[in-house]
Amino acid sequence: MSDHETFDLGDVALTEGATLRDAKLAYKTYGALNEDKSNAIVYPTWYSGRHWENEWLIGPGMALDPERYFIIVPNMLGNGVSSSPSNTPPPYDRARFPHVTFQDNIAVQHRLVTEHFGIEKLVLVTGWSMGAGQTYQWAVSHPEMVERMLPFCGSPKTSRHNIVFLEGVKAALTADADFDGGWYTEQPTRGIRALARVYAGWGFSQAFYWDEVYREMGFSSLEDFLVGFWEGFFLDDRDANNLLCMLWTWQNGDVGRTPGFEGDYERALASIRAKAIVMPAEKDLYFPPEDEEYAVGRMEDAERAELRVIPGVWGHFAGGGLNPDDVKFIDDALKELLAS
Amino acid sequence: MSDHETFDLGDVALTEGATLRDAKLAYKTYGALNEDKSNAIVYPTWYSGRHWENEWLIGPGMALDPERYFIIVPNMLGNGVSSSPSNTPPPYDRARFPHVTFQDNIAVQHRLVTEHFGIEKLVLVTGWSMGAGQTYQWAVSHPEMVERMLPFCGSPKTSRHNIVFLEGVKAALTADADFDGGWYTEQPTRGIRALARVYAGWGFSQAFYWDEVYREMGFSSLEDFLVGFWEGFFLDDRDANNLLCMLWTWQNGDVGRTPGFEGDYERALASIRAKAIVMPAEKDLYFPPEDEEYAVGRMEDAERAELRVIPGVWGHFAGGGLNPDDVKFIDDALKELLAS
Repeated sequence: MSDHETFDLGDVALTEGATLRDAKLAYKTYGALNEDKSNAIVYPTWYSGRHWENEWLIGPGMALDPERYFIIVPNMLGNGVSSSPSNTPPPYDRARFPHVTFQDNIAVQHRLVTEHFGIEKLVLVTGWSMGAGQTYQWAVSHPEMVERMLPFCGSPKTSRHNIVFLEGVKAALTADADFDGGWYTEQPTRGIRALARVYAGWGFSQAFYWDEVYREMGFSSLEDFLVGFWEGFFLDDRDANNLLCMLWTWQNGDVGRTPGFEGDYERALASIRAKAIVMPAEKDLYFPPEDEEYAVGRMEDAERAELRVIPGVWGHFAGGGLNPDDVKFIDDALKELLAS
Repeated sequence: MSDHETFDLGDVALTEGATLRDAKLAYKTYGALNEDKSNAIVYPTWYSGRHWENEWLIGPGMALDPERYFIIVPNMLGNGVSSSPSNTPPPYDRARFPHVTFQDNIAVQHRLVTEHFGIEKLVLVTGWSMGAGQTYQWAVSHPEMVERMLPFCGSPKTSRHNIVFLEGVKAALTADADFDGGWYTEQPTRGIRALARVYAGWGFSQAFYWDEVYREMGFSSLEDFLVGFWEGFFLDDRDANNLLCMLWTWQNGDVGRTPGFEGDYERALASIRAKAIVMPAEKDLYFPPEDEEYAVGRMEDAERAELRVIPGVWGHFAGGGLNPDDVKFIDDALKELLAS
């Protein structure tokens, strides 16, 4: 995929100490920036997602309408399109790619938005999963810029249970000796397939499987879904080191680590000023609604902070764009928020 | 551990077609069988559990009181104490150990109870997790024998989601090349540790981790819990092939496969005649209460079929005997059921 642009970041000093030299932020834009630069939306990617996998929420007649808004989709560092283990030259390539935080991601996205486009206000930041985490981070890092936020199926601080779920994902991948500490010459596909099977239990709810909803998606059996959807998903050009890079970012997600908050994520949440609709999914197994209910309760300075749960059995993938009902539910909320 | 007895089964023809020759059923009993053999309880083991790991629910003053009842704890086939991949001589050893069903387990337990002890009625069958699955199977295979049943945190038919969760567990273990298709000479500990980390996300609830309950259990950090509890748990003499043997039994659990029901598990449930209290745990991630609510609704011929949810944050391990509140809740229900 080369249908995107690249912002040359130069040398980026990362939170954890390394400097990523000649770093690249890959992004795609939809629509046109208006003259007073007042119609920009940022819509970051999710764990392993690439900009084209965000497009289901963008289109004429939808909330994210390119005829009205200028929508920027920045690729998360480590996703294989922006600077990543898989595309960075030595010495910081592959297993040596440095740790990247949510704060680092938002710092480079902020540079794109301000230095490159000269945008001072964002109408909206929104995103799914780690894209929701980036949404929270935008609202904490730049409260003066973010007018509205709609994080769906994600959190401002990665919960301990979520960290444990990801430990299982990581352990399955790295149990494959072909991974070789990250120095593989070919993808450790046995480990990647194992990771996919671990993920399968978490991505959708118990009820989704009880109801065999995967049949409506065109899969002929449970095993067909595990191979055809899940293994296929992670074998689709998703590099093992990239997956581990983003996994580290995810596990260490915490708006409290933003400079000025000394690790106090509740104070960081209280600093948010955006109008917010926070949308967990009813049966999300790793971002349960209870956690977001707690977060919304801490957003004391937000102009509006509403919890609105996406109903149904799709679990985390309610935010993945695969179920028309969930897409409409999210799109409707985005329209309402943008109109406010 | 040699503090148990062994029932020589001779040649056992298994449901799936193989014959396990010179098979052994290891068991331990607590208390004495009374003269008219009317005080017997069967309390099977769970996934990877051994008889001594059931003892937390047995004791003077408890429902399972050895001064009053004769409690038989049969070790599930494949658990390393009864006939298992790890202790069966060639040719059916290790990776060649045959598939074993819940029906097979109950068939050999039934022989122990009737042939060896001459018992015709069971006051109660109870068990946790796969022990609950065996409880259901007892009540379906021998409705005339089982007077009471109290399955906790388990199901009569393994749900699709539960099958997927176990696929992740299996994939993590077998991603380790040292597993070598089951022909390892030393335990594939990298895979076993990976399996343990996958399990960690499932065994306890999101809220358990949110509340850091593992600290009350004596673990000093999340990582200490993952290594000290979870990796330690599965490294405690639990053989990889044994784990996969029992995993197959679990994935294929279905009372509908009992002869006479032609795969109709609802009809099998309807045939149960025991007085039943069915106890899922509120936040169990792989045996969610909804599933057991459904099962109880199908037990139309049971003299009593009550759903009673174990409250709290312990998830599946509410039935593991580690939390005094949950132990009391289960013990109280057992007392009530035994008094009825």
